[in-house]
Amino acid sequence: MSKGHDKNKTTVSIYGQQYTIVGKENEEHVREIAMLVDHKMKELKNNNPYLDSTKLAVLTALNIGNDYLNLLNELDKFNELDKQKKDGDL
Amino acid sequence: MSKGHDKNKTTVSIYGQQYTIVGKENEEHVREIAMLVDHKMKELKNNNPYLDSTKLAVLTALNIGNDYLNLLNELDKFNELDKQKKDGDL
Repeated sequence: MSKGHDKNKTTVSIYGQQYTIVGKENEEHVREIAMLVDHKMKELKNNNPYLDSTKLAVLTALNIGNDYLNLLNELDKFNELDKQKKDGDL
Repeated sequence: MSKGHDKNKTTVSIYGQQYTIVGKENEEHVREIAMLVDHKMKELKNNNPYLDSTKLAVLTALNIGNDYLNLLNELDKFNELDKQKKDGDL
């Protein structure tokens, strides 16, 4: 019953540090997220050269968290709209 | 024409550090994201006690980035479905 390959191991570089990510997500997906985080950290560093790595990473997490919550709200609206459409059909 | 109050200033605490966030998002929204980041960092620390703050914050950003990309894919499916429905109506 064991698939034997349900965990992938991907090593990525973020802000000059190596991270080995183990999980079910495929390598391409992990690399895409790592590039997003690396890009946002460097962008923040350009705009705030005095910030240390921890603060840059926390602000990056906040930044992506903001995008995530906004998207979640957008999806909620879609679901609500979809529900209304279905209710209207009844 | 100036609204005069289009930027909010919110101070939040994440992993024991204070961050003052300036932007158009309201205070409640910023606090919600800060709680998400703080919670994920502490959760990761519990599972990986040897990790330093920078690595914890980067892994938190990756974690939220993963949720973000998965949600983006879900929304794409919705949009595609919605487009198909509209095309079918024509």
